[in-house]
Amino acid sequence: MNDRLKRIWQDGETAHGGWLGLYDDYAASIMGDVGFDYLVVDMQHGSADYTQATRLLQSVSISASVPLVRVPWNDPSIIGRVLDAGALGIIVPMVNSAEEAAAAVQACRYAPEGARSWGPTRAARLHGDYQPTAVNDVVACIPMIETARAVEAIDEILAVAGVDAIYVGPADLSLTYWLPPAGDNEGPFVNALETIVDACTRHDVVPGVHANSSLAAERRSQGFRMITICSDDQALAQGAAAMLRDGTAGSR
Amino acid sequence: MNDRLKRIWQDGETAHGGWLGLYDDYAASIMGDVGFDYLVVDMQHGSADYTQATRLLQSVSISASVPLVRVPWNDPSIIGRVLDAGALGIIVPMVNSAEEAAAAVQACRYAPEGARSWGPTRAARLHGDYQPTAVNDVVACIPMIETARAVEAIDEILAVAGVDAIYVGPADLSLTYWLPPAGDNEGPFVNALETIVDACTRHDVVPGVHANSSLAAERRSQGFRMITICSDDQALAQGAAAMLRDGTAGSR
Amino acid sequence: MNDRLKRIWQDGETAHGGWLGLYDDYAASIMGDVGFDYLVVDMQHGSADYTQATRLLQSVSISASVPLVRVPWNDPSIIGRVLDAGALGIIVPMVNSAEEAAAAVQACRYAPEGARSWGPTRAARLHGDYQPTAVNDVVACIPMIETARAVEAIDEILAVAGVDAIYVGPADLSLTYWLPPAGDNEGPFVNALETIVDACTRHDVVPGVHANSSLAAERRSQGFRMITICSDDQALAQGAAAMLRDGTAGSR
Amino acid sequence: MNDRLKRIWQDGETAHGGWLGLYDDYAASIMGDVGFDYLVVDMQHGSADYTQATRLLQSVSISASVPLVRVPWNDPSIIGRVLDAGALGIIVPMVNSAEEAAAAVQACRYAPEGARSWGPTRAARLHGDYQPTAVNDVVACIPMIETARAVEAIDEILAVAGVDAIYVGPADLSLTYWLPPAGDNEGPFVNALETIVDACTRHDVVPGVHANSSLAAERRSQGFRMITICSDDQALAQGAAAMLRDGTAGSR
Amino acid sequence: MNDRLKRIWQDGETAHGGWLGLYDDYAASIMGDVGFDYLVVDMQHGSADYTQATRLLQSVSISASVPLVRVPWNDPSIIGRVLDAGALGIIVPMVNSAEEAAAAVQACRYAPEGARSWGPTRAARLHGDYQPTAVNDVVACIPMIETARAVEAIDEILAVAGVDAIYVGPADLSLTYWLPPAGDNEGPFVNALETIVDACTRHDVVPGVHANSSLAAERRSQGFRMITICSDDQALAQGAAAMLRDGTAGSR
Amino acid sequence: MNDRLKRIWQDGETAHGGWLGLYDDYAASIMGDVGFDYLVVDMQHGSADYTQATRLLQSVSISASVPLVRVPWNDPSIIGRVLDAGALGIIVPMVNSAEEAAAAVQACRYAPEGARSWGPTRAARLHGDYQPTAVNDVVACIPMIETARAVEAIDEILAVAGVDAIYVGPADLSLTYWLPPAGDNEGPFVNALETIVDACTRHDVVPGVHANSSLAAERRSQGFRMITICSDDQALAQGAAAMLRDGTAGSR
Repeated sequence: MNDRLKRIWQDGETAHGGWLGLYDDYAASIMGDVGFDYLVVDMQHGSADYTQATRLLQSVSISASVPLVRVPWNDPSIIGRVLDAGALGIIVPMVNSAEEAAAAVQACRYAPEGARSWGPTRAARLHGDYQPTAVNDVVACIPMIETARAVEAIDEILAVAGVDAIYVGPADLSLTYWLPPAGDNEGPFVNALETIVDACTRHDVVPGVHANSSLAAERRSQGFRMITICSDDQALAQGAAAMLRDGTAGSR
Repeated sequence: MNDRLKRIWQDGETAHGGWLGLYDDYAASIMGDVGFDYLVVDMQHGSADYTQATRLLQSVSISASVPLVRVPWNDPSIIGRVLDAGALGIIVPMVNSAEEAAAAVQACRYAPEGARSWGPTRAARLHGDYQPTAVNDVVACIPMIETARAVEAIDEILAVAGVDAIYVGPADLSLTYWLPPAGDNEGPFVNALETIVDACTRHDVVPGVHANSSLAAERRSQGFRMITICSDDQALAQGAAAMLRDGTAGSR
Repeated sequence: MNDRLKRIWQDGETAHGGWLGLYDDYAASIMGDVGFDYLVVDMQHGSADYTQATRLLQSVSISASVPLVRVPWNDPSIIGRVLDAGALGIIVPMVNSAEEAAAAVQACRYAPEGARSWGPTRAARLHGDYQPTAVNDVVACIPMIETARAVEAIDEILAVAGVDAIYVGPADLSLTYWLPPAGDNEGPFVNALETIVDACTRHDVVPGVHANSSLAAERRSQGFRMITICSDDQALAQGAAAMLRDGTAGSR
Repeated sequence: MNDRLKRIWQDGETAHGGWLGLYDDYAASIMGDVGFDYLVVDMQHGSADYTQATRLLQSVSISASVPLVRVPWNDPSIIGRVLDAGALGIIVPMVNSAEEAAAAVQACRYAPEGARSWGPTRAARLHGDYQPTAVNDVVACIPMIETARAVEAIDEILAVAGVDAIYVGPADLSLTYWLPPAGDNEGPFVNALETIVDACTRHDVVPGVHANSSLAAERRSQGFRMITICSDDQALAQGAAAMLRDGTAGSR
Repeated sequence: MNDRLKRIWQDGETAHGGWLGLYDDYAASIMGDVGFDYLVVDMQHGSADYTQATRLLQSVSISASVPLVRVPWNDPSIIGRVLDAGALGIIVPMVNSAEEAAAAVQACRYAPEGARSWGPTRAARLHGDYQPTAVNDVVACIPMIETARAVEAIDEILAVAGVDAIYVGPADLSLTYWLPPAGDNEGPFVNALETIVDACTRHDVVPGVHANSSLAAERRSQGFRMITICSDDQALAQGAAAMLRDGTAGSR
Repeated sequence: MNDRLKRIWQDGETAHGGWLGLYDDYAASIMGDVGFDYLVVDMQHGSADYTQATRLLQSVSISASVPLVRVPWNDPSIIGRVLDAGALGIIVPMVNSAEEAAAAVQACRYAPEGARSWGPTRAARLHGDYQPTAVNDVVACIPMIETARAVEAIDEILAVAGVDAIYVGPADLSLTYWLPPAGDNEGPFVNALETIVDACTRHDVVPGVHANSSLAAERRSQGFRMITICSDDQALAQGAAAMLRDGTAGSR
């Protein structure tokens, strides 16, 4: 099993990832060749339904990037099914309390640590030897911190055993501070990031954040160690715009 | 109906286009926003089957780019079906003779100019008033010139009434001159391009070519007036690589 | 954004809608041309899964009818995902308490009014300028009242801020009064309708009901202002039966 | 096997059919309940690709209507595959010569009458005992007559052994007489219909025609004995419009 | 409606079933011909999404085996939707308390016994006369007992009215006793089976278990009366291995 | 690239293969584990459409079996597209003449040996270094001999350069000798097999045949060196029947 993400974190390094919002498995293969530490299939705001997510996970699993899924909700059913399909980590939206964080952990781990149900048909085929204990170690459970309420409860959330990292959703976090839904903001938004990173340091949990390439340096300086710096739809738009600009330069 | 391509050609200008090899209709929407003069759904070497091509055409049709399809083969069945689905032009692979060019024209036009069958359900919905004569005027018939044999027969091919443009496939053309299958080559390949453009000038047919952004200026200087300068898979790969590079700069 | 439904209600008028139980997006386009005030993609008892619902919403969004979805359950995950896909209103099954109504509202609205997560990729493309406050205003939250228990709790349900309308499910409502599951019934069923409409008047909430064309006049006289009068499967069956009857008249 | 169509023709009666342009198999089930003698899955101008056609054929096969397919082209590959999927008759577009008619027959029949390849996996499951000789008897081969050229060659086409019926495509036929592509026209169009029916009488081949419910009586009086009087998309549009009209009557 | 399973249980007999983990509806047809008493579409660890499950249920429903679904979770939404699609029984994972068992029953039954919502479009088409009372009688509600916690709560779970059978998941049950996730184990696992069967006898509930052909005799001797003895993926693997062995015997 | 099939033939050994008639890619993975020398995705009589075939080829390509496709017809379009999707050999139905065999070879090979078009997106990803000359060497072109006419023309067919093997279709071959469509027959069928093998020996072409495990020894003794001994649908049926028999033994 690909433990690249866990090793980066154990070494105190920073993981840089990509985001998959398209549902084309060939696009996922292309993203798999680029060299990200992890790739996240987005089932919340992305296009992929379950069958498509299964195919994206297959494409990513044969790359060197660790396949993660952002599930649509904190729901043991879909968490179990995407783990069965080969995800090696789960990003869980809108976790606002220790109870919700504990539920996410339960869904990600086999007994006795959790309550995940056994039946890893595709995962076992993709990742080879698939033993409950080893899998429990590799699979990353990553609640999203994306509300003011979650920031207030950050210490109790991070105290939940089995939370490997958290992942800040900046647009939703902004909305709860009455700010526009953007990747970056000022004032209470920056304070919240600081609060989160500080708490992560205290609890030895990896702080992660949704960003883009231009925000990456700032987020690293703020202490984040899991930073998504690219999404496939933006990469496509920017790549195509650059090619149009270059290809028509001097033509008119 | 979107006659942007025909107007560019009538004005003696050069059209710059994009290529759709992915099958995600959201990716096609993104490409539709970039600003290409035309976008080609590739059903020969691309991933899209008929249903997916239908959706890509729908996404492109609500953009400002003209929706074209490269069909898998010179076959009246698939040509008719993608026109029904909203394509406003057809790129036809491996046309090596006047007879084959005439067959392509027949498949693209309603009687009396051709033998396309009536039934434009989706096309009429996407493009509004859909009258046989007007449609025959707008739909572009674009045979591919991609073998040494076709270059030898170029004058008879271009003499076929109803051929609006031709489209050079450089990789296949190269192979027939015993050269590696690349977007550019030297020697007989360059001579062939010159032969083709010259013949197009004689016959008042638009010379087109598959290229990329870095080859565009050279192809324009060679006289090509329909130049594909971007494909979605390359744009994605390059855009993501740029974001990985920018996002990790100074991090290690 | 298409605010036709909200305007009709603000003007004190009655909205008449259609129901989409088929999963063919071309069928949805046809329904979009008919002229209904709203069209509901049914994901509870209809055939569409998430990807298909996405396509139906795209077809309806380019019509003049407001695209709604009846979600399979009162679940923030699917409510958020169909809003991201372009729905401008949500019909929520089996709401039996103020707590359940409040959960539905939370799922339909961005912070600070609710807890919907930001990421309207397709919706923003379909509906243009997509700002949280404006979207919160346009999106209709419509709990279903379809049990005797909900009728008993009607005042507390309607007191929940953010409930724009309610929608009576006559078959399920009937079952809870030990009546057959039909679109109309007598006795306690009629009393329940009256109780519901009266409460809606008191709370300034729009009373809606699932019906058909022959029940519409009666439902209007009972005070309903959101009436579904057609479903695509019934329309197809009745339309085809009429054509068979007309086409074979006098033939045998 | 359902030999309803062949029996109607043997009894000298007229078969009335429906047309499936949607790709929803539930819609096909609804059409299957209406009572048509045959139902045609349209793969030429309709939406269904092969997998969807397979499902439509399954839905029709459990109804009392005979499942036919209009294939996209006179191509033995797709004819064989839809017969394997359960079609009991094939409507073949654009047959303009005896040679083309003979090719259609070859594709529809097992050796020694034809060259269809053996492998009726789904068909055998849907239609029970599936023996080559019996199947050759039941499967109807129905070339389309839809060009002026075909009308001129009508006697040689009808002389081909194995042609059970022909099917007039009025829109395409009109185009070849420089008339608008409509279901009915005057002048040379009417003469062509007469020529076709007369020739069918001479050759003991059933004359069929694409029509609608309002044209049916006229077509019967002209001698046609296979008349398509309804298509699902029109039925849906008309049925829904009727329900909107009835449901809003007196409301404004 | 196919009441084979209920009749077997009423007669005190043992039902033997098959498991569908593939998503090919033709494979489901093949399994339908083999002769199992019931066939379970697995939506928890199997490949089928909702649309695919719908097609598998259609294939099984025309066989003599009773169509069941193992839903991904104890969720009224998916339980209602697969019943609408034609399932005649529901296996519900991870039921650990009387409250959870009661929720499963509520989701399986129409009012007044439960809270299932009315709208059996496909089910009514597949199973004929579909009346709430009769359907409530036929549909089997089958909670899974697959944790040590559930074994401790077995008497309260079985006391819930409407639980027809329970279904032991041996792999998950084993994990909660710190045993490897296998179909059979010793020690506390065997004791748990005995506890479960004894409680079933006391409460007159049918004890079921996931097994395979080699475990069947032992499970019968332990008192189980619903035994899954085959899954399609294992059958395929074993069948193909046998054919490879036989077909190459003596060849090398 | 996996050249197992070519190596077996060069070593004078016999290759034993499996047949994929289901469209489930997980089933294809299971078949990939069994150990066949080659696996054939059947697009003629099997269920898979193009997109599904693409996925089956992906599943087979990561196994040790060589991925082949039986295309629906001798058509350069579909041959090119499945080679692009990763097929390493093509079985071509109904080849009856040298001209048809030459067309098949042309479609399978890049220039100068043939006329295959360049664009191996998925194939290059699956098989690594993908150079025209090397690919031309590995890809097997395998016409089917399945009519009496082809047997008569066998010497001219086998004389076509680039034909690596032929593949006998016993059911279709039987039909052309007025025999029932079975995997084995007597009289002229046996003579035809002998004629074919003898000609193959003369022309140094590998004789192949569709069979099953019980016919394998006889076919080997007749000289065939490419023998399909298992199809997934039969394996599933036989495997499940065996498990039902074993699992219910002694139960009644």
